[in-house]
Amino acid sequence: MDYPNDQHPGAPVRGGVPEHGRIPKYYAVKAGLSALIGELGEGETLPTERDLALRFDVARETVRQALRELVLEGRLRRSGRGTVVAGPKLEQPLALASYTEGVRRQGREPGRALISLDRFPCPPALAGELEAERGEPVWHLERVLLADDERVGLESTYVTVARVPGLDRDFDPDSSFYAYLAERPGLAFGRADERIETVLATPREALLIGTPPALPMLLIHRVSRDTAGRPLERVRTLFRGDRFSFTVQLGREG
Amino acid sequence: MDYPNDQHPGAPVRGGVPEHGRIPKYYAVKAGLSALIGELGEGETLPTERDLALRFDVARETVRQALRELVLEGRLRRSGRGTVVAGPKLEQPLALASYTEGVRRQGREPGRALISLDRFPCPPALAGELEAERGEPVWHLERVLLADDERVGLESTYVTVARVPGLDRDFDPDSSFYAYLAERPGLAFGRADERIETVLATPREALLIGTPPALPMLLIHRVSRDTAGRPLERVRTLFRGDRFSFTVQLGREG
Repeated sequence: MDYPNDQHPGAPVRGGVPEHGRIPKYYAVKAGLSALIGELGEGETLPTERDLALRFDVARETVRQALRELVLEGRLRRSGRGTVVAGPKLEQPLALASYTEGVRRQGREPGRALISLDRFPCPPALAGELEAERGEPVWHLERVLLADDERVGLESTYVTVARVPGLDRDFDPDSSFYAYLAERPGLAFGRADERIETVLATPREALLIGTPPALPMLLIHRVSRDTAGRPLERVRTLFRGDRFSFTVQLGREG
Repeated sequence: MDYPNDQHPGAPVRGGVPEHGRIPKYYAVKAGLSALIGELGEGETLPTERDLALRFDVARETVRQALRELVLEGRLRRSGRGTVVAGPKLEQPLALASYTEGVRRQGREPGRALISLDRFPCPPALAGELEAERGEPVWHLERVLLADDERVGLESTYVTVARVPGLDRDFDPDSSFYAYLAERPGLAFGRADERIETVLATPREALLIGTPPALPMLLIHRVSRDTAGRPLERVRTLFRGDRFSFTVQLGREG
């Protein structure tokens, strides 16, 4: 235990327990499992719940609670054969660059699966964000994000039909929408405003991404603008909280 | 329902439910409660669990599950009198500027409560991050972050004793450490690298911040550097996921 309160600043899970009061039993098991995960390598299978209950001398439900938290935090993942040690979280830069580039930089193959591409009349709030007319036609492009065929996120892109009238004809939904826009004359990206928060997956989202319901997710809201400052797109991207972290470099004027 | 699949891009909770398969009962209650929250104002009290169970014609445990998720997401909060409608999440910029400035910008009074200030020998991983010698003395400053006396986060700052030898004598722990460093000759901030992820609160953290255990938190890791690029501090800040979101503006080179 190198750090005070066992608070390794780089560790996603701290070993810290209250100085006063009793240590919750499930948390003692979680700390024990955390050490075990450290000894095993990525992809290795954990002993069964039954064996773990014997090893830690607790009820199976106590083991289950500890396992559940470690799965939610992305230290473990469920697999056909049992519970296995998960790999590290993917680090995605907060940058104008697209999802495609961020995932490739980490040696993973990015992909996207189309859920739907629809036109609908622009509602008031979106009209404000896109500086569009209320009721004018807007595309809604919804796609599941993949990394090496693993479903890791869900993205909704909103863009006026006036900006990209041929989206339903000349856009390959498995490709980068950022690249599609960047190729078009007069649609150069200037800057983007992002907001990041943590939310729970809804049942529909959990189904589409294939996660347990109520898994903590990272939700990124983005409005991208062209070089003249006019909004290009409104994007809402949900990333698995157990699989992603985001990095940003801040400068003096940052 | 203005958006396809009821996916308002600005909404933290989407009304979306699977197109196929049944809607989970608790989720139907959650959608109903979400509408009710919209009608009530910030600070207003919800009907009792018993009344809600009657209103939605479900078991009290079903109401409890829906309430629990809405509390985790920061739409509701527990109060002495019952469950009340929470205010919006605080938006904190991802910027070199300190917590103090970010909270003030939103009209809240920032504060900090000292948990501990200790010296300890620099462990190997931290030595790498701080470009310090292994075993050289390092300060660990741990503080609870406050907004209008509400506990909203927990911050651990690591800095070598060589950089700020008098920290235990001339630093007011309720003040900004960023401002303290910025005042000192030769310690000007250059840039910082941040990484943001979602984690669950440990029992110790939940106790210190006063949250339910296993509440999803936003964890920000930071290494700040001086103008010559040498590390100044390693910071680990945990923010309540139900109370904070983070914003960033991305430029062309962002």
